[in-house]
Amino acid sequence: MRLRVKDMDIATGRVLVATLNEKDAEKLDINALDRIKVKKGRNTETVVVNIAEGKIAVPKGKIGVSEGVVDSLKLKKNDIVDIALARKPLSISHIKKKLDGQRLSKKEINQIVWDIVNNKLSGIEIAYFVSACYTHRLTLNETVMLTKAMVGHGDILKLDKYPIIDKHCIGGVPGNRTTIVLVPIIAAAGLTMPKTSSRSITSPAGTADTMEVLANVSLSIKEMKRIVNKIGCSIVWGGALNLAPADDKIIQVERPLGIDAESQLLASIMAKKHSVSSTHIIIDIPVGKGAKIEKKKDAQKLKKEFEAIGKKLKKHIKVVITNGSQPIGNGIGPALEARDVLWLLKRDYKAPLDLERKCIILASETFRMAGIKDGRKKALEILNSGKAYKKMKEIIKIQGGNPNINPDKIKLGRYSFTIKSSKNSVVRDIDNIAVSKIARVAGAPFAKGAGIYLYKHAGKKVKRGEILFTVYAESKERLKYAKDVLKKLNPFVLK
Amino acid sequence: MRLRVKDMDIATGRVLVATLNEKDAEKLDINALDRIKVKKGRNTETVVVNIAEGKIAVPKGKIGVSEGVVDSLKLKKNDIVDIALARKPLSISHIKKKLDGQRLSKKEINQIVWDIVNNKLSGIEIAYFVSACYTHRLTLNETVMLTKAMVGHGDILKLDKYPIIDKHCIGGVPGNRTTIVLVPIIAAAGLTMPKTSSRSITSPAGTADTMEVLANVSLSIKEMKRIVNKIGCSIVWGGALNLAPADDKIIQVERPLGIDAESQLLASIMAKKHSVSSTHIIIDIPVGKGAKIEKKKDAQKLKKEFEAIGKKLKKHIKVVITNGSQPIGNGIGPALEARDVLWLLKRDYKAPLDLERKCIILASETFRMAGIKDGRKKALEILNSGKAYKKMKEIIKIQGGNPNINPDKIKLGRYSFTIKSSKNSVVRDIDNIAVSKIARVAGAPFAKGAGIYLYKHAGKKVKRGEILFTVYAESKERLKYAKDVLKKLNPFVLK
Repeated sequence: MRLRVKDMDIATGRVLVATLNEKDAEKLDINALDRIKVKKGRNTETVVVNIAEGKIAVPKGKIGVSEGVVDSLKLKKNDIVDIALARKPLSISHIKKKLDGQRLSKKEINQIVWDIVNNKLSGIEIAYFVSACYTHRLTLNETVMLTKAMVGHGDILKLDKYPIIDKHCIGGVPGNRTTIVLVPIIAAAGLTMPKTSSRSITSPAGTADTMEVLANVSLSIKEMKRIVNKIGCSIVWGGALNLAPADDKIIQVERPLGIDAESQLLASIMAKKHSVSSTHIIIDIPVGKGAKIEKKKDAQKLKKEFEAIGKKLKKHIKVVITNGSQPIGNGIGPALEARDVLWLLKRDYKAPLDLERKCIILASETFRMAGIKDGRKKALEILNSGKAYKKMKEIIKIQGGNPNINPDKIKLGRYSFTIKSSKNSVVRDIDNIAVSKIARVAGAPFAKGAGIYLYKHAGKKVKRGEILFTVYAESKERLKYAKDVLKKLNPFVLK
Repeated sequence: MRLRVKDMDIATGRVLVATLNEKDAEKLDINALDRIKVKKGRNTETVVVNIAEGKIAVPKGKIGVSEGVVDSLKLKKNDIVDIALARKPLSISHIKKKLDGQRLSKKEINQIVWDIVNNKLSGIEIAYFVSACYTHRLTLNETVMLTKAMVGHGDILKLDKYPIIDKHCIGGVPGNRTTIVLVPIIAAAGLTMPKTSSRSITSPAGTADTMEVLANVSLSIKEMKRIVNKIGCSIVWGGALNLAPADDKIIQVERPLGIDAESQLLASIMAKKHSVSSTHIIIDIPVGKGAKIEKKKDAQKLKKEFEAIGKKLKKHIKVVITNGSQPIGNGIGPALEARDVLWLLKRDYKAPLDLERKCIILASETFRMAGIKDGRKKALEILNSGKAYKKMKEIIKIQGGNPNINPDKIKLGRYSFTIKSSKNSVVRDIDNIAVSKIARVAGAPFAKGAGIYLYKHAGKKVKRGEILFTVYAESKERLKYAKDVLKKLNPFVLK
């Protein structure tokens, strides 16, 4: 309701008060002592309501405001303000309920998610929700309801296909760019895979960062749908879409304490998958030092939870626990990883075999889940025949990139230095965390050409003077910083 | 450290980055990828650090900043900024620990309180602390440590006296202005009572609001000390002092959900008492419909908790559970309550007897706790002899008021209306919540003269046409609003 400001001095003291005429108040069902939002331009102030009877104090169509409101909104007489009833969001009491250890109903969870998505809850209030999920855990049913609520309060990619394949990796391992290999293999087999991926937050590159070297990844949901309907797949940045948006707001609030409210994390992941209508999901849990999951036991537990929630959501889920103890692939950083992926798809001898092996495992498990026999053989056939590469060229082209890009010509950082082995030895270990840090200090993922290229993996023999790795940067300074970090962190442990 | 801005374009993308010369960084023990606060005027931005070696990229005494930092702080070349190392506050991990259900050490609790007081924690982070205290409860020992930490990180009123009396009321009952009667009785007996009180948040008046009708209540801790040393007591507003300031910040965060983390509430109350060095504390828990505590069982539980924490803090504590089912005293609202109190102290026939009875009980329990025999008799003697009134005049005078103020001339709201009984009957009930709401709508506590004067209490006979109560307001409009509310809320239930 739009009202004209009538400057009045009916309220003294600290309270912010606005007086409405009884007729206007009646229309909006506002009572004395209710709270309303008064909006002037970009500024809003929540104030307590008084009701004026008759026409003298505040006539119909006008609003009387106390000095506090005048100051706060910089109001002048006869300004037009917009008012609306403000109350404690409904979900406040549901959050309190969960904090008291009680179970929430579907309706209550829906309300909480709705209020989060619509900015009705403050960071403090969301923090109470996260705490409640963290200390009391959600039951499996609550997790499922939360997943569905997150999906429901966001956009959904609807596709008239079956099966629809999706993939998720728990992360923490540098390189490990399986998605960009897997999607063309799966789609070349005639299956549908509308993949959305994230950018990096703390790693040297996310799938979206790497794919961006080859094509545009910021697409609308409409464009994505058109593409998937045409070529059976896509590799786009999820952040540009409005899929399960509650998730991002919850993550923001979790960050200060580094809390992972596990049941809520599961809901977040499944919501993203559910909102692209996927029916078959392969989940990769890399386990190893420096990966997100460091212990096999924790991976097993997480696997079971994924399987349980998948069953409830009537989705086929295959969880693969993989070796995450060292980087996968040779290139670390967007351009270096994009080069690896193209080499692999083009069957170039420079392709990293560890990445290839892992992609074939994931592809074969995916095929098996989708009822396709001899998955491993099929994946290899699709790769070796060039069908996967052909599909990749289709993806790059339809997403606005150059399908004929030569991986050998992908631009790397023009500044680089190499580290050689000081002795004849064997690589005992490559430190995930050190590799990530150095690549990031060198500029990845923002400087696409920055990163590290690994010439050796753990278990390999090295001769004295052989190159262990090269660091790339797009500026001299960045290269220097990487060198500085290298003085403190050693990514290669030799025997 | 103050540095001069050298505009540089070394960082692209989303991150906020500042580059320091290695020599400067060394001085502050800052490493690459650490976070620092960059301060320009009133604006501060937390940014990631890069280190520049040599003198070319960023010479000593200069700071290189990325475009994000330039925009955020509106920096120009050669501006001087102040930098300091920023990291996650230490208490973050302690809060996480409590959220995980573990016990906190004295050191950890101290750190949390220090960080709260020094604005190192965001509202979200404090909310996690409140959640943790709420869902896992503090042990008695933790509560004691929290109390001491709150006291330690604020000012303390040190007095060279024994005993030092204090009083607390759990609240929720309109009127009930016992403190302003109790303090002069206790002090007239030669005991020390440095009373700090709160203003109203949701009630028609707090002790500080009412006392303000008679004298100044916003005193510094130095003035308060001088006064207590001179006349043995004071009645001041606690909010003007810096006693246990962590409390206020915690309360702010609790409000959105209406959480009372009980163990933390106990600590808050005890901290306020502890920080005025009190040795003997009388606690009033009114129980009844509309009071803060509605059930006897809950009052008993709270009583035990107060006693346990009192023992640990080596304080004498006497908890009195009182009848809080209806308003106490006749006046509700600052001026009306101040008038009741003065009538009572002056032994005027218009003094409310229920308030007098309650004050005598509290005084007699206080005397007993302090080792003074025949407390009831003594309290009555002090009142009837005029000693209490004389002490009250001393308090009013030393706190800058008029000691000879005539209660009959205290200014009430000039607009009023009275409600009369429609029949011969008996007052069955007076609704605490309705009385509070009407008095507040009429303008209390901000309009000192606004409020309600009750002519009858529950249990009393009324004749048809006899006045039940009068509502006072300082403006016609406010009176109207009160009338409006009266159409919906009926404070008097007749049999």
